[in-house]
Amino acid sequence: MTPSIPTREAPFTERLADRVQSIGSRLIVGIDPVIDRFPEALRSLDPEAALAAFGHGILDAVADVAVMVKPQIAFFERYGWRGWRALQSVVEHAATRGVPVLLDAKRGDIGSTAAAYADAFFGDDPETPGPWVDALTINPYLGKDSIDPFLNRSVESHRGLFVLSRTSNPGGADFQSRATDGEPLYLGVARAATRWMAETSGADGGAYGPIGLVVGATYPEELAEVREAAPRSWLLLPGLGVQGGTAKDVVSAFDGAGLGALASSSRGIIYAYEGRDVGDWTEPVHAQAKVDRDSLQSVL
Amino acid sequence: MTPSIPTREAPFTERLADRVQSIGSRLIVGIDPVIDRFPEALRSLDPEAALAAFGHGILDAVADVAVMVKPQIAFFERYGWRGWRALQSVVEHAATRGVPVLLDAKRGDIGSTAAAYADAFFGDDPETPGPWVDALTINPYLGKDSIDPFLNRSVESHRGLFVLSRTSNPGGADFQSRATDGEPLYLGVARAATRWMAETSGADGGAYGPIGLVVGATYPEELAEVREAAPRSWLLLPGLGVQGGTAKDVVSAFDGAGLGALASSSRGIIYAYEGRDVGDWTEPVHAQAKVDRDSLQSVL
Repeated sequence: MTPSIPTREAPFTERLADRVQSIGSRLIVGIDPVIDRFPEALRSLDPEAALAAFGHGILDAVADVAVMVKPQIAFFERYGWRGWRALQSVVEHAATRGVPVLLDAKRGDIGSTAAAYADAFFGDDPETPGPWVDALTINPYLGKDSIDPFLNRSVESHRGLFVLSRTSNPGGADFQSRATDGEPLYLGVARAATRWMAETSGADGGAYGPIGLVVGATYPEELAEVREAAPRSWLLLPGLGVQGGTAKDVVSAFDGAGLGALASSSRGIIYAYEGRDVGDWTEPVHAQAKVDRDSLQSVL
Repeated sequence: MTPSIPTREAPFTERLADRVQSIGSRLIVGIDPVIDRFPEALRSLDPEAALAAFGHGILDAVADVAVMVKPQIAFFERYGWRGWRALQSVVEHAATRGVPVLLDAKRGDIGSTAAAYADAFFGDDPETPGPWVDALTINPYLGKDSIDPFLNRSVESHRGLFVLSRTSNPGGADFQSRATDGEPLYLGVARAATRWMAETSGADGGAYGPIGLVVGATYPEELAEVREAAPRSWLLLPGLGVQGGTAKDVVSAFDGAGLGALASSSRGIIYAYEGRDVGDWTEPVHAQAKVDRDSLQSVL
């Protein structure tokens, strides 16, 4: 029972703004499934069934609150091809719930290989993640020709990209914060994203374009700098919750209409049932997602 | 008929040196499968069967010539979970042929996610790539704490890493060649790899340690710089052949014993049958791999 493939008639950033405004949320829910932490009833399933059931449960719980869900592909790849098949089930279920999918895969490779990745994640084959994914995280280390296949496909098929700028982990500073041309590399990446959009037909118009940037919610000062350097990029702000970011830390990322940024929490939401005696494990998940949504709304 | 999981009693770099010397080769054969370019008999199979059969054929053709095979995971991911299952078949077949596998996946993510990737690619579950993979390419953009899970696992289970330094594509210069602390970022990455090994028990001894570096065969000057900055890293030199690198370009990468570097060619070898009227498509593949092997041996 494969659901209908989502139609994407408007550019990604327009659809994103519509969804933000229609559900009144700036929250992304990350799906980082670790089977040892699953509710007991799911832990007894085989890993593929457990991953799929958990992902479906999270989607059902957050569909009215999350602007997008963000499955982290590593937690599926840990189970090999069966894990990928579970991911397939999760992204298809997102379509049945009408929730856009931001796949957190952080891919990056030379042009011919990047084109193969673009097929995998933005392609047409319904037996792959391609038709079910709305946006993808990518790594900029290999430069412009590694971004182009994703960018071209984003323009053609109305998808979105989030390029790593300043990641949420402490080690992010090791290379991203090194001074190059008088400013940190992460700002160089942010300016490059802005320039690449200006140079690409179909990405050069509108308040926002298809290349967003990833900046940790854990680094509010860097966030304000990136916001200024990349005025046409939606910002994805991971690290809300368990990693220590707060709604107040990310307020500088939003524009006057409360658009242009989305904050992401994973473990703090999806494992909200831990240590509680509840009948339905998805209830605390839904409740925590609403708390985080409201917390973000309150700082606008 | 799953083959026996390879035992890895000696550290990766020792096993690598033994294999280089026992087969007399410095060549890595990249497996970048594009079904449209397959021999006609394979194109009629379903994609999963075609990918697996092509990978097996390449392995059978180059098993005596290639130090390692290097499957590029993007070309499998393009076919979703079935592509991953084909990759599984290919890496298991490598074990039956006794050929070590360098998986070209270029992963990189924050610590908890990197640990999940390390499980996927260096873990024990025989239904995943984990037990069948000897070495992995990784991306340094997220810094030291994104490398640690791979490094620790490499030390424990005798695997190898190849961290991207200066990639073979023109866009590699966009960020990798920016000046930081008075030298290009790719040299900063090379020095960091050397330092990380020195700081890690089990990685700090021997002529070479578990963190190798990727430097395009297409950039001989940068290659010589990286060689000097990272004396304990094996260098992986992609871009031989179709991308324009030659054996003479890479000679500076080898030590006095002809160790410490491996050059990689993909399309120039695996599609060597194109435009030829041959009965067995693997024969030109074998012949071209021998030509490339001999060309590398001749410059030592």
